[in-house]
Amino acid sequence: MSGNTFGKLFTVTTFGESHGPALGAIVDGCPPGLPLTEADLQRDLDRRRPGTSRHTTQRREPDRVKILSGVFEGVTTGTAIGLLIENTDQRSKDYGNIKDQFRPAHADYSYHHKYGVRDYRGGGRSSARETAMRVAAGAIAKQYLASQGIAVRGYMSQLGPIEIDFQSWEAVGENAFFCPDPERVAELEAYMDQLRRDQDSVGAKITVVAEGVPPGLGEPVFDRLDAELAHGLMSINAVKGVEIGDGFASVAQRGSEHRDEMTPEGFLSNHAGGVLGGISSGQAIVAHLALKPTSSITTPGRSIDVHGNPVEVITKGRHDPCVGIRATPIAEAMMALTLMDHLLRHRAQNADVSVATPVLR
Amino acid sequence: MSGNTFGKLFTVTTFGESHGPALGAIVDGCPPGLPLTEADLQRDLDRRRPGTSRHTTQRREPDRVKILSGVFEGVTTGTAIGLLIENTDQRSKDYGNIKDQFRPAHADYSYHHKYGVRDYRGGGRSSARETAMRVAAGAIAKQYLASQGIAVRGYMSQLGPIEIDFQSWEAVGENAFFCPDPERVAELEAYMDQLRRDQDSVGAKITVVAEGVPPGLGEPVFDRLDAELAHGLMSINAVKGVEIGDGFASVAQRGSEHRDEMTPEGFLSNHAGGVLGGISSGQAIVAHLALKPTSSITTPGRSIDVHGNPVEVITKGRHDPCVGIRATPIAEAMMALTLMDHLLRHRAQNADVSVATPVLR
Amino acid sequence: MSGNTFGKLFTVTTFGESHGPALGAIVDGCPPGLPLTEADLQRDLDRRRPGTSRHTTQRREPDRVKILSGVFEGVTTGTAIGLLIENTDQRSKDYGNIKDQFRPAHADYSYHHKYGVRDYRGGGRSSARETAMRVAAGAIAKQYLASQGIAVRGYMSQLGPIEIDFQSWEAVGENAFFCPDPERVAELEAYMDQLRRDQDSVGAKITVVAEGVPPGLGEPVFDRLDAELAHGLMSINAVKGVEIGDGFASVAQRGSEHRDEMTPEGFLSNHAGGVLGGISSGQAIVAHLALKPTSSITTPGRSIDVHGNPVEVITKGRHDPCVGIRATPIAEAMMALTLMDHLLRHRAQNADVSVATPVLR
Amino acid sequence: MSGNTFGKLFTVTTFGESHGPALGAIVDGCPPGLPLTEADLQRDLDRRRPGTSRHTTQRREPDRVKILSGVFEGVTTGTAIGLLIENTDQRSKDYGNIKDQFRPAHADYSYHHKYGVRDYRGGGRSSARETAMRVAAGAIAKQYLASQGIAVRGYMSQLGPIEIDFQSWEAVGENAFFCPDPERVAELEAYMDQLRRDQDSVGAKITVVAEGVPPGLGEPVFDRLDAELAHGLMSINAVKGVEIGDGFASVAQRGSEHRDEMTPEGFLSNHAGGVLGGISSGQAIVAHLALKPTSSITTPGRSIDVHGNPVEVITKGRHDPCVGIRATPIAEAMMALTLMDHLLRHRAQNADVSVATPVLR
Repeated sequence: MSGNTFGKLFTVTTFGESHGPALGAIVDGCPPGLPLTEADLQRDLDRRRPGTSRHTTQRREPDRVKILSGVFEGVTTGTAIGLLIENTDQRSKDYGNIKDQFRPAHADYSYHHKYGVRDYRGGGRSSARETAMRVAAGAIAKQYLASQGIAVRGYMSQLGPIEIDFQSWEAVGENAFFCPDPERVAELEAYMDQLRRDQDSVGAKITVVAEGVPPGLGEPVFDRLDAELAHGLMSINAVKGVEIGDGFASVAQRGSEHRDEMTPEGFLSNHAGGVLGGISSGQAIVAHLALKPTSSITTPGRSIDVHGNPVEVITKGRHDPCVGIRATPIAEAMMALTLMDHLLRHRAQNADVSVATPVLR
Repeated sequence: MSGNTFGKLFTVTTFGESHGPALGAIVDGCPPGLPLTEADLQRDLDRRRPGTSRHTTQRREPDRVKILSGVFEGVTTGTAIGLLIENTDQRSKDYGNIKDQFRPAHADYSYHHKYGVRDYRGGGRSSARETAMRVAAGAIAKQYLASQGIAVRGYMSQLGPIEIDFQSWEAVGENAFFCPDPERVAELEAYMDQLRRDQDSVGAKITVVAEGVPPGLGEPVFDRLDAELAHGLMSINAVKGVEIGDGFASVAQRGSEHRDEMTPEGFLSNHAGGVLGGISSGQAIVAHLALKPTSSITTPGRSIDVHGNPVEVITKGRHDPCVGIRATPIAEAMMALTLMDHLLRHRAQNADVSVATPVLR
Repeated sequence: MSGNTFGKLFTVTTFGESHGPALGAIVDGCPPGLPLTEADLQRDLDRRRPGTSRHTTQRREPDRVKILSGVFEGVTTGTAIGLLIENTDQRSKDYGNIKDQFRPAHADYSYHHKYGVRDYRGGGRSSARETAMRVAAGAIAKQYLASQGIAVRGYMSQLGPIEIDFQSWEAVGENAFFCPDPERVAELEAYMDQLRRDQDSVGAKITVVAEGVPPGLGEPVFDRLDAELAHGLMSINAVKGVEIGDGFASVAQRGSEHRDEMTPEGFLSNHAGGVLGGISSGQAIVAHLALKPTSSITTPGRSIDVHGNPVEVITKGRHDPCVGIRATPIAEAMMALTLMDHLLRHRAQNADVSVATPVLR
Repeated sequence: MSGNTFGKLFTVTTFGESHGPALGAIVDGCPPGLPLTEADLQRDLDRRRPGTSRHTTQRREPDRVKILSGVFEGVTTGTAIGLLIENTDQRSKDYGNIKDQFRPAHADYSYHHKYGVRDYRGGGRSSARETAMRVAAGAIAKQYLASQGIAVRGYMSQLGPIEIDFQSWEAVGENAFFCPDPERVAELEAYMDQLRRDQDSVGAKITVVAEGVPPGLGEPVFDRLDAELAHGLMSINAVKGVEIGDGFASVAQRGSEHRDEMTPEGFLSNHAGGVLGGISSGQAIVAHLALKPTSSITTPGRSIDVHGNPVEVITKGRHDPCVGIRATPIAEAMMALTLMDHLLRHRAQNADVSVATPVLR
């Protein structure tokens, strides 16, 4: 209820501050009998890990995850899975001035009003560091989904002003940007290099796609699959917008253009992004998310302190100039967690259902 | 769990099909002592009601709501509030052909795969008719929020290709489009008249704004206020995208531009849309939503039947050529329900908190 | 969250006051395709209905239930099922003195402190009248459970000082007490006649049994099947104690006596009441519940009014001298709802599980 | 949903197997600003810890708890509190025969049918070892409740056939049995010594009392305070019965005897156990729970193996001959968690309520 849990049947509850001793999660509801090792989780954690290129924060966290329960002799037992990542790169530093000041566009000011107290070291609970546990938990969901023929993958579709067309999944894995077009990577690198010289940051757009999803996932009327995806994706730090399928482009479309016609050979288009009436249609689920530019820049900004006095704030430290660059594995995790939860929810109520109607793709 | 409930502390559970005997809702968790009458709910229901202009469906439903419990001697008692709207305009008609066919871009196909059976009359549970109960429940939330100085209002910010700038709240109430600029209304009417002649439909964009929200609402990390708003707004029929504040425009922004600086006199901008780190900042909460063009058009479309055979479908009946026109009260309701829920959630945990720091707007 | 919902996957949300216009419920999560009519619900409602013998309250409510949604062409559709019972026997009477006084051992005093306001007519929300909706919802659960070979039945095992041994299920249906021994009915009638003459009330003990439950239902560690049964049964008005299997008799037992040994032919005893480690074992689930004597008696009692002044209270009206007499269908309903919920919860996570080990009974 | 979470606003989610690397919990929803140290949790953990007298298991676990998040500079921050206890006394032993056999009256058989796989070492998740995390989390609840003037304490009220009257809280803390009568301790010791010689086990009855609870806690109709207490207490390993107030004794009582009359000086009795209509009355909350004799005895018992073949089972190892002896801190924890949750739930909805009526005790 205090927001540290995601999902209803396949649930993930997390804890941990950026500068505390550890991050952790409890994954509950995982079906028993699923082969699972720490290496399965580490793969995605390594994709999210900071410090792997010059374009992300130079903070170095190995993000080594341990499975503390719920797995026995290499398979899940159906009981709660405890996960732990110890924080190692906690530089001792002087937080004296940050303690009583609010960094503009950070959570400092809103957390202060909410709780009265806060762990001001590196953002505490509001730090994007918590997303490490999302990725670890998401990897468990991905593992089960894969066993059902469902693949969840994402890529960067825009960096600042640079729009990127999808070329191939292979390309995505071969650069630090999750860029799906190998010919655009040099342009992205040049842009980022200039950005750092400008001491500024920039936003990004990420696209996530789930293929192989059976028709029928999602619950009318409030827990439609698209509504739950929007919830999960918007809960990622810095996300300011979510689209399913054509999203905001639908506003200017006509019905005769938007509707995805069907033939026995399949759907003729996928403007809907794989969701009809809030329920998966069997087509690929497609979502886009907008990430704002991080506010942790060294250009001074106007703000106030806890007493209401004006101050000038410079956010030093090791920050990502574009948080979107490392966001792809996080977005994949949130989509995987949402689909996993809905797979179980659908199964609970509708396990007996079988129809003769063919599944279109 | 099957998706008919919204909220965690202030909860709304609804039932009802478009062509069944009635729609209903149970609103749970309302604070006691709130003055409430059926007329308070009817006001918003009348704003959403079909058949009030030539630009919406000509189906005529009075949508007369009854309060069956939870209110005694004019005030809420704190117990569950039962609401009921009887359906009256259920034309008997021949559903023979629609029964076994899937209308393109409707929920027919996905519901069929989910449940095996479905109430095919007018969309059944997937009909936008269910949103009447959202509006009724939202009116209760608005009533309480108003008592706390919080106002939730919306307007149409784009109709098809026509973008509309906000001019005044007064204008919004004076036309059938919830258009905030009186000088654009004639243009909208002309567009809609042409659309009907084209036998087509179109999308729309709605903007919802909450003013007077105290800082501190929203729960890290998964139930951020923006994530929950995205959930609620995306759960409305036909919505394909949700933005908070600058939304997708943030992608191309720089951090030095996006961050909302603070001075003792207040925030200098509101790119964030009133949410920092997932927690309300005290500024106006601003959300935009994209509604797709309805698929219920009389232009024939290709589809299949339950046996997988190709069919041609024409959707007759009385449909809205732009579902966005009546969506403003629904969007307001979902934002009000979300804020109401978070007000109670915040209060539960943080009732003891008080800070000396001034609230900026 | 405000307590008007029971269950997590198969959920029942109710509303209604004893003297309001109607009672209602929304049953969510019911599997689609289940044959269901109003008559299926009415059967159990008639078993609970007041005024059927001289030993229960003479208030006459037909308790005629309507299904408003979620059932189409005779089968459930998987969407929310709306239920409604209109109140008809609301005698207008003078509540002048009851309004500001607290009847001893009633909810008046605690509700007053909780909410500040309350519907004082006949107990309002705290009246046992709300249990009608539990019975209606429970009948849906029973219908599905029956399709899976599970039967839930109850009987009166003690009335005041009179303990009753189980003789047959046939006997239970043939008297107004749900007494399983036909030879004890005359004794019960004589006891009740004397009780009325004494203007007093008395407690009762009810036993509920579920047969045919598969092994595996219940969730470690907090939502054990016995814990959830205790929750459901203790939530019934007037219940003060719940036992599973041998219950409090286990305190004085030794392990060598209590443990239910197993052979290939089955369990040798059922001290556990069908639950091992919180999970159903395949044996009959057996629960007992203690109901207190109703406090609505005409013998004057000492109390206070809302100002703290001493008053003498006499509870007039039409009340059950032993609320336990009509409690059997309610207890069955709560056990059925609990099992139904756990059947779906188990299925969600463990649908893939199959073991070769035989099921013992 | 898979049962590893307790509470709705103040929630505890736990993980951990008896022979895994660690136990853990996440406590969510704790109000910020509460002073909290690891020592505050350790106190109750030490009261539950095994191996402190010859009457409990000789397994030696220091049960040293670490706080990993949610506490900063000595006070809670309002964010999720991560707790960890590492397992240290995991004797390597041969589980060869236990692996495929079901110990009678243990969870082995029901877990096997539920999950197909299980961690058979020492009971895995079904081991009472998980209750350590309940005690740790309960200590946080107790800390907050104490700040509100609420004290939760328990004692042993019966050991096997020996009933114990309450004499003083001081006595409870001075012996290994939580026995409230110092003059009975020698008798209990003699009984236990004989029991060990008999190679048998026995049940016990525990009583838990909460004083200082304000009137108004509990939610009609399904989440009454007594129903939620029953849930929490029955979820403790080995518990087979729960009573509130007079419990099963109410069955034979008359209304004129059971009802607790009120005067301006206070209630005249407390048969109700502090709960009226499911809502706290302001009197002491009193609950009793029955614990069965543990099934882990060295006397051979008949059972089957996973193939359905008959086997003879002897449960060796270090087990408590009366699990009730260490159950008092666990019962206190579950009552504290339940009250804490309801305190927040009540506050969320009814923060505005204030009445002039005096609070009776």
